[in-house]
Amino acid sequence: MNLPAARIGDPVEAIDTPALVVDLDALERNVARMAAYAREHGMKLRPHAKTHKSAAVARLQLEAGAVGVCVQKPSEAEALAAQGVSDLYISNEVVDAAKLAQVAALAGRVRLAIAVDSALGVDRLAQALRAQGTMLDVFVEVDVGHGRCGVAPTAAGALAHQVVSHGLRFAGLQAYHGRAQHLRLPAERDSAIRHAVALARAAQASVTAAGIACPLVTGAGTGTFVHESMSGLYGELQSGSYVFMDRDYADNQATPHAPAFEHALFVKSQVMSAGTSHVVVDAGHKAHAIDSGLPRIWGHELDFVNGGDEHGILRRRAAGATLPALGETVWLVPGHCDPTVNLHDHYVVVRGGLASGRVEAVWPVDARGCMR
Amino acid sequence: MNLPAARIGDPVEAIDTPALVVDLDALERNVARMAAYAREHGMKLRPHAKTHKSAAVARLQLEAGAVGVCVQKPSEAEALAAQGVSDLYISNEVVDAAKLAQVAALAGRVRLAIAVDSALGVDRLAQALRAQGTMLDVFVEVDVGHGRCGVAPTAAGALAHQVVSHGLRFAGLQAYHGRAQHLRLPAERDSAIRHAVALARAAQASVTAAGIACPLVTGAGTGTFVHESMSGLYGELQSGSYVFMDRDYADNQATPHAPAFEHALFVKSQVMSAGTSHVVVDAGHKAHAIDSGLPRIWGHELDFVNGGDEHGILRRRAAGATLPALGETVWLVPGHCDPTVNLHDHYVVVRGGLASGRVEAVWPVDARGCMR
Repeated sequence: MNLPAARIGDPVEAIDTPALVVDLDALERNVARMAAYAREHGMKLRPHAKTHKSAAVARLQLEAGAVGVCVQKPSEAEALAAQGVSDLYISNEVVDAAKLAQVAALAGRVRLAIAVDSALGVDRLAQALRAQGTMLDVFVEVDVGHGRCGVAPTAAGALAHQVVSHGLRFAGLQAYHGRAQHLRLPAERDSAIRHAVALARAAQASVTAAGIACPLVTGAGTGTFVHESMSGLYGELQSGSYVFMDRDYADNQATPHAPAFEHALFVKSQVMSAGTSHVVVDAGHKAHAIDSGLPRIWGHELDFVNGGDEHGILRRRAAGATLPALGETVWLVPGHCDPTVNLHDHYVVVRGGLASGRVEAVWPVDARGCMR
Repeated sequence: MNLPAARIGDPVEAIDTPALVVDLDALERNVARMAAYAREHGMKLRPHAKTHKSAAVARLQLEAGAVGVCVQKPSEAEALAAQGVSDLYISNEVVDAAKLAQVAALAGRVRLAIAVDSALGVDRLAQALRAQGTMLDVFVEVDVGHGRCGVAPTAAGALAHQVVSHGLRFAGLQAYHGRAQHLRLPAERDSAIRHAVALARAAQASVTAAGIACPLVTGAGTGTFVHESMSGLYGELQSGSYVFMDRDYADNQATPHAPAFEHALFVKSQVMSAGTSHVVVDAGHKAHAIDSGLPRIWGHELDFVNGGDEHGILRRRAAGATLPALGETVWLVPGHCDPTVNLHDHYVVVRGGLASGRVEAVWPVDARGCMR
């Protein structure tokens, strides 16, 4: 575990670099806006904690009205449960028997749910739960257009039937369309989610035809939740990235009637080498994830060029632009927040803005590296 | 800190997924081959520990004849020094005064060197060392074609003069050409390093003209070290990736007369969802870095398709290929080893091969997340 990059009370200038910095005022506004949206539209909100991996952020979301959080891995659930988060949904499949034994044990300590998409997975889950004498909620995942996990809609009824025959609690359908989130135009996202809704509706019909009630359809992300909310089918939103907003989500053309979210997550970096055509900051892709493209430079007309693991190269976007000086602070808006957070052990949490704020808290990234 | 994915003595099948797994036999052969090459060519070897961030791997390299290791960040140096690595070169610039105070303190505990490329950096370094009463070796970095850090060759003499006037030990030139490493053809790499050598020679002349002896030119990576070795100028090799070999380096067309290195680093993954057109493994880019492209599937005619943070999608390369079954193990050769290692807390170290070996050790990734 690395030491935090700052101490509580430090001014922003004193934060060592590179560091993962949260603008707490912006974060709180994002949390409140999404909570208000869900409330006003009669949707449950279960934000995805894969984004932040933090019990502190989860608590802010829960206090604002979230019913619980999603995670993607059993070890993430364990890490957040250890910090007091008590309603967790592993919105992903687990088929490994040893891992399912851990899941079953955790189900004895918190309110837990999990997704399934195979008969083998359901059998092994049931066996693990019987062995521990515990119970959890089971969602059948349906492939609603992403082309990754999930059964075909017509197969949902048979799998739900298997869940019920094992005496497990069938809780509904997991219907998340990941690839729709970053389609740039609202009309493209609308069209992708219309298709997803049609498939989820077919899955629901398959479940109902099997004589099983379908209590909930859950899914949606920061790019599309308005569309799922309007569908009349989905009852729960799983958006995660809205708390931080990364460059990739900000590159989407905004959805009409969607709340506006602000960048609340930054990597503080410092110019450590200065040439005439470019300068170099001390944050490469070991400090911010580039799977969804390079970061944006905050407040400068500069482009970030990939400088490798430990360096970022900044170039002028236009001939007249000024390059920052050696030693100067440069704030990066990460291309993708989730894997960026996963590179850091701590959030340095700033109140009062990046220009002149102070460190109000240091939050551990509780589930950092919890990939199992 | 996450729990390791296996215990010593476990068979390979028992390693939880995803996990970072080292084939120790292959690693030892890689270490021996590079050590032999350096010895036979009269080169010092100072492998880059940014690749492995591990005192255990550093010890294998040192026992095989390495003179020390390179690191890229002061916090990496601290983490390895804490585990007994006692000859460290921070082959990168630091200009932050607080960080330089740490560097100066560390110089009192281990044999330390650092790179500089600015007058401000040299002044602050000298000030920090005076304050602590410590000393270290200073290399002037020259931009030999990468276009990132480093002074122009003609400016090397003036900066070396500044180093010496402060009473610091001028140790030579840092002359690394990062972008040359992954040029695919040996002739392209040869040409890039010929150019780098010419620039480094000009820098050496600039130093000599300032009346200062230039004890060493250090640089080179896994893609080009044969060329630097043949230059008659370089005296030290900094290659790092050779210990593990990633998919990106394996995609280079081999350099004639270069030792052959084997893949020694894998991510063990498991099929957790199986469709008819594809299957999904439980290792996405939170388990292996994709900045240099996607991983190769070991032993299968399958392609890895980006499935996001927690998933990898495997598709048949040819119509007849067999998809692995639900629950089956799939070994991934990471696209880029350095940032992949940085995602994990431990290496699970296997003796006897991936097919039927056993876990001989679990090594912490000591400098995981040490980005400052």
